[in-house]
Amino acid sequence: MILNSLLGYTGNMLDRADHLRRDSAAIHAARMHPTARFLILEDLKPMMAEGGAELFWARRSECPEGQQVFLGLDSQGEPRFAVDGKPDDDLPCVATDARAAGAILADGRAAIIAQARSVLDWHRRHGFCANCGAPTRPEKAGYSRQCDACGAEHFPRVDPVVIMLAEKDGMALVGRGPHFPAGFFSALAGFVEPGESLEEAVARELHEEAGIRVHSVRYAASQPWPFPSSLMMGAFAQAEGLELALDESEIAEARWVSREEVRSVLRGEGAWSAPPPLAIAHWLLQTWAQQP
Amino acid sequence: MILNSLLGYTGNMLDRADHLRRDSAAIHAARMHPTARFLILEDLKPMMAEGGAELFWARRSECPEGQQVFLGLDSQGEPRFAVDGKPDDDLPCVATDARAAGAILADGRAAIIAQARSVLDWHRRHGFCANCGAPTRPEKAGYSRQCDACGAEHFPRVDPVVIMLAEKDGMALVGRGPHFPAGFFSALAGFVEPGESLEEAVARELHEEAGIRVHSVRYAASQPWPFPSSLMMGAFAQAEGLELALDESEIAEARWVSREEVRSVLRGEGAWSAPPPLAIAHWLLQTWAQQP
Repeated sequence: MILNSLLGYTGNMLDRADHLRRDSAAIHAARMHPTARFLILEDLKPMMAEGGAELFWARRSECPEGQQVFLGLDSQGEPRFAVDGKPDDDLPCVATDARAAGAILADGRAAIIAQARSVLDWHRRHGFCANCGAPTRPEKAGYSRQCDACGAEHFPRVDPVVIMLAEKDGMALVGRGPHFPAGFFSALAGFVEPGESLEEAVARELHEEAGIRVHSVRYAASQPWPFPSSLMMGAFAQAEGLELALDESEIAEARWVSREEVRSVLRGEGAWSAPPPLAIAHWLLQTWAQQP
Repeated sequence: MILNSLLGYTGNMLDRADHLRRDSAAIHAARMHPTARFLILEDLKPMMAEGGAELFWARRSECPEGQQVFLGLDSQGEPRFAVDGKPDDDLPCVATDARAAGAILADGRAAIIAQARSVLDWHRRHGFCANCGAPTRPEKAGYSRQCDACGAEHFPRVDPVVIMLAEKDGMALVGRGPHFPAGFFSALAGFVEPGESLEEAVARELHEEAGIRVHSVRYAASQPWPFPSSLMMGAFAQAEGLELALDESEIAEARWVSREEVRSVLRGEGAWSAPPPLAIAHWLLQTWAQQP
């Protein structure tokens, strides 16, 4: 199912086969099946095949101990799992930074990393019940954790984030966070808070971070961003004025840029640098710069 | 900031004043200020003024013990808080179901309930550290919980949900969950999973629940839904066929309906009933039915 094949970490071709997750016998059979393959993540770094630009899929016999998550079925119906562990030294694979791997892989295979990394990271940091403090155990093929002490069931987090370009008079607003490299600018972004719509989050974040008021917020596209589990939702908004008042704890520097300037930057010829194609911020800048 | 004033629980007029949350002295001063007002929620039910269609804002002297959350500043700069507790019997207020209150309140005041209810519910169910099991304590005016044992900081959840109408040949797909009242149909919906885009979640849910494939997913609007902390994202999608294969654990009954039929239903004259105006499902149905 490729709907946004241009956006990083989208286009996952696996069928998540949700109905199997509730059936522990079916998941066990899938795990034992000779065609089952396992994507090992060591410290959340996925294994790539040595010397290639491919994911490394281990057989069950090659699979280390560790939390497993059912990823789904491939186009042949063959089961795929992720496992949190350290592979044997003699396996022909290399633990690869998930951003680097995401930039290399095509055809939706980066999306498998996003799925695997988000859920395994969640297990690592959610071994206890937030409701009562007791240890929890994984359930539903890795898509929930059950507390036997108080009965609470916990599900992996997905944190909605808005990321947006404010526009005014043919210019768009880009900013540099305090920890960004010098000369690196991106779209402004922030977490959606409880009790607000996506559109309201866009307006609030632009006001908080840059001191501008906007109207006509338009959603454009989304991507998962597995660091650890964001859902990035890209938008455009019309600013009411150009004057900025930066929250310096969030934004060290911000500027209004023209379409021509953004086109130069995306060709690598500009006065500043922008996020790579893997990131929706790149797509937002590109989409905006291509408009007449 | 009213961007979607027609959608339930949107249009919050309070300035959340995020920069104050990090400043515990400022929050203390706001709490002690004579203009400070407190929305009491008893078992997550907000207080409405007796005999009126207004929120009941208590003074500090009327405020029970309990978890407090800073909601923001009103248009006069006066501080507003939510508090989880039981009001004195002699206060002229009534604990009101949050859906009923949301349906009654206009001008974005329902959005205050969404904000208050989501964050207070999160505190109720997140007193312990998911990472290590130790008790946590509230920080940042109620917008985080800190674990002193392992150092983890936890933030309120916002769970992205897609809710959508699949369309084909001038018909839209509505369904009835197993626990819905008889004759009550709505748009299909489901949680976004780790590692997928919003558009992919729409396609996956429609396939899982109704057995249909879709393309051209179009985001339309969003609303917060504080039961407990969903961000509902409404979309339309083009179905490839009309044949359904229902997942009966999720959908007891589904049907393709015409625009004329939906218009009748929304007038209260149809053969089935739809969600009330508070819900984005109503807005999706109405928006779709008004199209030519």
